[in-house]
Amino acid sequence: MAPEPNPRVLYAKIPSSQHLIPGEHLVYDPAPTIDLECPLAKGQFLTKTLLLSPEPYMRERLRDPAINTYSTPMKVGQPLVGMALVIVLRSEKEGLRAGEYMVGFTPWEAYTVQPYVDARVEYKDFPSYTFDMDSLILKPVQDPQGAFPWPRFCSCLGVPGMAAYVGIEKIADVKPGQTIYVSSGASGVGSMVIQFCKQKGLKVIASASTDEKVKFMKSLGADVPFNYKTTPVAEVLAREGPIDRYFDNVGGEQFEAAVNNMSLNGVVVICGAISELNIPREQRYGNISTLFHRRIRVQGFLVTDSPDLLGRFFQEIPVLLAQGKLKSEEHLFWGMENGIAAFLSLFDGTAQAKPVVVLDPKYGASA
Amino acid sequence: MAPEPNPRVLYAKIPSSQHLIPGEHLVYDPAPTIDLECPLAKGQFLTKTLLLSPEPYMRERLRDPAINTYSTPMKVGQPLVGMALVIVLRSEKEGLRAGEYMVGFTPWEAYTVQPYVDARVEYKDFPSYTFDMDSLILKPVQDPQGAFPWPRFCSCLGVPGMAAYVGIEKIADVKPGQTIYVSSGASGVGSMVIQFCKQKGLKVIASASTDEKVKFMKSLGADVPFNYKTTPVAEVLAREGPIDRYFDNVGGEQFEAAVNNMSLNGVVVICGAISELNIPREQRYGNISTLFHRRIRVQGFLVTDSPDLLGRFFQEIPVLLAQGKLKSEEHLFWGMENGIAAFLSLFDGTAQAKPVVVLDPKYGASA
Repeated sequence: MAPEPNPRVLYAKIPSSQHLIPGEHLVYDPAPTIDLECPLAKGQFLTKTLLLSPEPYMRERLRDPAINTYSTPMKVGQPLVGMALVIVLRSEKEGLRAGEYMVGFTPWEAYTVQPYVDARVEYKDFPSYTFDMDSLILKPVQDPQGAFPWPRFCSCLGVPGMAAYVGIEKIADVKPGQTIYVSSGASGVGSMVIQFCKQKGLKVIASASTDEKVKFMKSLGADVPFNYKTTPVAEVLAREGPIDRYFDNVGGEQFEAAVNNMSLNGVVVICGAISELNIPREQRYGNISTLFHRRIRVQGFLVTDSPDLLGRFFQEIPVLLAQGKLKSEEHLFWGMENGIAAFLSLFDGTAQAKPVVVLDPKYGASA
Repeated sequence: MAPEPNPRVLYAKIPSSQHLIPGEHLVYDPAPTIDLECPLAKGQFLTKTLLLSPEPYMRERLRDPAINTYSTPMKVGQPLVGMALVIVLRSEKEGLRAGEYMVGFTPWEAYTVQPYVDARVEYKDFPSYTFDMDSLILKPVQDPQGAFPWPRFCSCLGVPGMAAYVGIEKIADVKPGQTIYVSSGASGVGSMVIQFCKQKGLKVIASASTDEKVKFMKSLGADVPFNYKTTPVAEVLAREGPIDRYFDNVGGEQFEAAVNNMSLNGVVVICGAISELNIPREQRYGNISTLFHRRIRVQGFLVTDSPDLLGRFFQEIPVLLAQGKLKSEEHLFWGMENGIAAFLSLFDGTAQAKPVVVLDPKYGASA
């Protein structure tokens, strides 16, 4: 049989700036061919790629491997690797037959002998918070037989849908009657977040970059869809908020506007920071990317929110103190006339320990 | 009886910049007097102030009342109000006798007829996330009878101790063997955090601004006490980390350094942002103050952390989709040769919906 063309998209060069240039860093390469009757070893199978799913997290993988982030990098000289729908053409793998559909990671090329190993990096060299992207292997899926179109496997049934689902079910802790703000509301993730939240009885504010996307968000049920290019986010949130939840797909200024319009005990779900993916790491705003990469929880609190704990505090701590099991120091300021100096010492570094203003010397003596 | 001097510290003027000037915004006023035999109405009592406790949160209250934050503002023309130890001199309040000690909010003056109401603001005018500072009323405490010195009531038994306790017990979720970083480790809060964490079996890294404070932190048991003015925080954390928890007392650059050196699923406890209290609100870094004021939780996550949920996802979502209960749109790019354009559309706003690259037209047809 004559060789078939096997066009691919190559990751040709590590971007030195954050700007990806087609033809330089990413190269369409129509030249390769493949013999579809090529021999397959035991365990191998040949797939034909049907749908490719470009996703923002892929950008993070196109980097100098010396930079550690949450994902393993892609390999220069190999095709891009990403989520895709494939069909099995031939199989020497037990339990897998020709004609089956699969979703998972595959190189951006027309045909592939699986498992595709040339793009794999040595996972062992990465820190513990790094996710081994090569572990997202192809898994069989059912033919929907017309119940929904195939591209759904790359949107609401793919990574975007899963991200919306996990973010809402596991992280956001939403309740009926709450107000949520979703940035990138017309995106794969955002469009699912809007619908999940409407099904759960929330008021949904959602933004996107064009009026057409605003219409789409309205059709999904968003209560306050708006175009952030023509209406400032802060203005909409001030008018329609406060918001109880923020599902953050972008980071940057929207994060700031959202936080400034949050109600008490608000929750920000950091799903991504797409606005930061294409800017240099050192310019990224307030570490949002790292919060996301390392699944960090940030929790503001006030002492006065926990009256129950304060009861325990007054039972336990004076005892430990009297028993000498806790140490403490105070920086004593003597007399009301030194009160201002005592207060300002908190901010200029002159307080040597917790400042206390002693108005009656008897009560400062043994400190 | 001759009137007694009743010196006080006045909140004389709202600071227009963030710089507090003694004699202008805060004024020591030795002139007032009080008749200690003055008549007391039913429910009133006369206190003598013994110890005053200057605390960072007080700075936030010294502001234009039009600015909403987590606390009610102080009143210009009235003494500062803060936590203090007082002794009851005379009482017309049921159940309260002369000679009793009390801790709570009182004006910065030598003697006070309680309850002191002149500094109270109208709480009803503030948003729901505002804490009514005037609700922290004086409560009786026991004479420690030498078991510990009196100033402890303004440090480890006062707001700083409570903040450390609530932060560690309720928010930080610490486990033996973990590594925690504490900024402002020699402060009232920090010194307790160090000790609580050592008692719980953590490795404690702690920073302060002088070598003397470093010695104090060492005496409290800190494993890696250091002076951040002479050794960069990022350098210490890179060497001694990664850190699992960060107890943030300062915000600003330390927050950034801490996040950059955190392990997977790290937790940042935002107790305060003292580095931001004296700078203009619009220059405050990454909204840390607001996260703290509104007790906001920020949670980074990756889909791949929740394999259990993904099982549910694939049970529930395809059904909803087939039933028409979920909508989805994709932006289809046709052919491998448009793969790069599809990928870049994620970042330049040209993707109208989730991009999908269709390699076989049959699988893109019905989208």
